[in-house]
Amino acid sequence: MFIKNDQVIYSFKPENKPVAEVENGSIITFQTCDCFANQIISSEQSIDSLDWNRVNPATGPVFIRGAEPGDSLKVSILKIKLANSGVMAAIPGFGVLGKRVEKASIKIIPINENVAYFNDLLLTVKPMIGVIGVAPKEGEFPCGTPGKHGGNLDTNLVCEGNEIILPVNVPGALLALGDIHARMGDGEVWVTGIETAAEVTVKVEVLKNFKVSEPVIINDDIVAFLASADTLDEAVEKATQYGVDVLTDLGLDLNEAGMLLSAVGDLQISQVVDPLKTARLVMPRWILTKYGLKIE
Amino acid sequence: MFIKNDQVIYSFKPENKPVAEVENGSIITFQTCDCFANQIISSEQSIDSLDWNRVNPATGPVFIRGAEPGDSLKVSILKIKLANSGVMAAIPGFGVLGKRVEKASIKIIPINENVAYFNDLLLTVKPMIGVIGVAPKEGEFPCGTPGKHGGNLDTNLVCEGNEIILPVNVPGALLALGDIHARMGDGEVWVTGIETAAEVTVKVEVLKNFKVSEPVIINDDIVAFLASADTLDEAVEKATQYGVDVLTDLGLDLNEAGMLLSAVGDLQISQVVDPLKTARLVMPRWILTKYGLKIE
Repeated sequence: MFIKNDQVIYSFKPENKPVAEVENGSIITFQTCDCFANQIISSEQSIDSLDWNRVNPATGPVFIRGAEPGDSLKVSILKIKLANSGVMAAIPGFGVLGKRVEKASIKIIPINENVAYFNDLLLTVKPMIGVIGVAPKEGEFPCGTPGKHGGNLDTNLVCEGNEIILPVNVPGALLALGDIHARMGDGEVWVTGIETAAEVTVKVEVLKNFKVSEPVIINDDIVAFLASADTLDEAVEKATQYGVDVLTDLGLDLNEAGMLLSAVGDLQISQVVDPLKTARLVMPRWILTKYGLKIE
Repeated sequence: MFIKNDQVIYSFKPENKPVAEVENGSIITFQTCDCFANQIISSEQSIDSLDWNRVNPATGPVFIRGAEPGDSLKVSILKIKLANSGVMAAIPGFGVLGKRVEKASIKIIPINENVAYFNDLLLTVKPMIGVIGVAPKEGEFPCGTPGKHGGNLDTNLVCEGNEIILPVNVPGALLALGDIHARMGDGEVWVTGIETAAEVTVKVEVLKNFKVSEPVIINDDIVAFLASADTLDEAVEKATQYGVDVLTDLGLDLNEAGMLLSAVGDLQISQVVDPLKTARLVMPRWILTKYGLKIE
């Protein structure tokens, strides 16, 4: 299944009409636009000339048969094929130090054979998905915002080889994704990564017996609990809470769970510049497995 | 030079009398107590029975000849030799979820041959220094608090093989350290790592031509700018500011510096449970070197 990048949404909502319907277990390739809907083609362009109603498009949504509210959807990221150029921007008022940015600028970043060219710096690419999500139960979440449904998580762990698990809120889940970065620092401090169009190939699987309230990312080594909130301090508290809850659900008493997290759980920053901030608590998977965590 | 653990301070201040004086370039071994001043010897002990005036002792301080205000002090961490047991605690009101902790508990963690035994979990140790600092210019900073002078940074990067650079505020710098952890998750969410006594061997060198305003950690691969503040959001902003300032001092214009940081700078969490919170911006060292950063 190939979903073209002329089929996009700008917000996640239950009313979005699916552009395709697939079986549980399918492999899908999403052709994605960059976060500016591919509007930037030159560093001479004015940032004000962009249509700001067309930022962070997510290709889709796709209806996955068998996905029902209360299930989870596991999305295995098989391949991210980048376009041959990316773009970065500095925009007054945006980013951690947006107040210091006096005028906007745009930078075109050529990409070739896993290298991104930032002037004369050759940067190894680390492709990741910025926006990935499903429909919320109700309401409408702009693609530029992170939340329990996913959305603009801007999390470096959403990369090839990893799996992201999202809560299913409506029949079919309605998965969409976009906003690929050739490379982004944790935090995305200046509000863009190296933004690029791409083709993203994923496998989708419905999990009937594993529930998540916010996105969780896994691979063989780690389980990462994501949380988004108005402040990083709140996001960190929520992510810690999820980690503790998983351990106490597995039978540990609260103090044991907390001390274990304090020794082996890493609080990390996903991004601090989208309307909400996203943090993650990363646990070694073998420890959770040893205590009985089963995914699938 | 060997400094015994009966020579400790509980706060960093200019008035602390040095317990030893060494030449620039010396190698020093600090024998350290754990963060509870080695008061806990059994998990049956009541946390209330501890003398809370004796927490986070730092062994020292040591006067380094030639260190003058305005210089920096580079401390190369050569070796951290752990004791054969550690301790963890859960304490009502402390840690990210302190409000959920109803009663205190203490846990003894045996350590043997690079493994810490958390019940039946065998955890590989990752020794690091929690408290390391120099005298501030004025005032008094309890060893439990992080700050520009160092202190309770609780940063996993302060480990064997890495170097921490501290600002020199008074003649001789007055270096002291303690609060070793056999292992700690980033964030230290439940307020203790695996706390242990240790012997820490470092080399001290005065840097005349490299200034830092807050602690910086380096190794061959990275340069990490630390910042502590009341909230994680503020700490992250300060750390980002340091990173940008270094790049603009090296000649990059602000927007270029910001975009570069956004692509290659990782915002990370050191700890979120000491009276101030500590974040770090981690940059690839080769990029800073390419733009002309010289350390030494």
